[in-house]
Amino acid sequence: MKTAEKILLTALELFNSNGESGVTSVDIALELDISPGNLYYHFKGKEIIVSALFEMYRERMESILNSREAGDINIQDFFYYLLLILQQSHLFRFLYRSPSDIAEKYPEVSRGFQKLMKTKEDTLRRLFVYFVDEGVLEIADNKRESIITLVGLVFTQAPSYYLLKGDNINDERYINDSLKMVLFTLQPYFVASETNDALMLDIDDWLNDKGES
Amino acid sequence: MKTAEKILLTALELFNSNGESGVTSVDIALELDISPGNLYYHFKGKEIIVSALFEMYRERMESILNSREAGDINIQDFFYYLLLILQQSHLFRFLYRSPSDIAEKYPEVSRGFQKLMKTKEDTLRRLFVYFVDEGVLEIADNKRESIITLVGLVFTQAPSYYLLKGDNINDERYINDSLKMVLFTLQPYFVASETNDALMLDIDDWLNDKGES
Repeated sequence: MKTAEKILLTALELFNSNGESGVTSVDIALELDISPGNLYYHFKGKEIIVSALFEMYRERMESILNSREAGDINIQDFFYYLLLILQQSHLFRFLYRSPSDIAEKYPEVSRGFQKLMKTKEDTLRRLFVYFVDEGVLEIADNKRESIITLVGLVFTQAPSYYLLKGDNINDERYINDSLKMVLFTLQPYFVASETNDALMLDIDDWLNDKGES
Repeated sequence: MKTAEKILLTALELFNSNGESGVTSVDIALELDISPGNLYYHFKGKEIIVSALFEMYRERMESILNSREAGDINIQDFFYYLLLILQQSHLFRFLYRSPSDIAEKYPEVSRGFQKLMKTKEDTLRRLFVYFVDEGVLEIADNKRESIITLVGLVFTQAPSYYLLKGDNINDERYINDSLKMVLFTLQPYFVASETNDALMLDIDDWLNDKGES
């Protein structure tokens, strides 16, 4: 692995464990056992590292968000698609830990983040319209935006809530817990509630299968 | 107003605007136009100020949470009660901005916070059981805990979500927006959905009335 790549992955790990504000460039160099000068040769300061990590996150997210056109997706695909997004967000979870700090220190990253949030909501909107047309979901037009907000909120903030309650959200099981909360949020809007109840019961098996494949 | 009280209120305002990590004891003294020595005479460091503010928040919250016994509350009272809690959380919103930072720097505050979250969830649980018994809500036993988590999540994390999207959450209208999202979350579980639809439509009027009274 190249030094630049090693620096990014080590920084990501440290940011996730200690928060962005709790980690300096020197900490990253120490952890890698390289000189601060060598680190500086690759990245001119922590700001550049944070920007590069956000760029990695953004590229992965956009590639997932653009991978599926509505019209070619069933509800199980949809859940799998949400799982892929949650996995990436877990990997880059330091970005969600203190959004206000990030916004203040890195206005560029913050603007990119806002755009990404908008893309997420646009994608949900497109998929919900499609699933309503297909008769899978039943969502009145005047409720659509509230449901998008609600799902978006659960989608991005569930780990922070577990954190407030004192849980250690570094554990990967919080990916599945977040996904289950999203499914639970959508449950009242499914047309075939029996199918959906069965789906909720099966979700653990389903998540285990996906984990193994 | 006594100096100690002035210090707390000024600190609260600065923490809410700039985040706890973006404010030093010296900043607070400067803002108040007193010497750092005078501030130190009242509070021996920022940690004591943060703890004192958390204590204020905790006392106010517990007084609200304990003010109502189930058995003496209707659904409109319940919404008003949620509004009171949201108002206090808005006032002390810096505590919710970077929970992971707070947890790391102030383990004592973090433990108090976790207890408070538990009290909130316990109160919701008691009220939901009551409203189900009264025939106002319809919640299957196996869904109760998920609904409590979902409502708790919306209740505490809605402002952070608006923040992620780039909104300025210092505006008090976010209190009402958060309350509306909680009501929306509960909507599918109301027995009389027509009553509830009417209630959602009236909620703006209702919030305006409460604001004036």
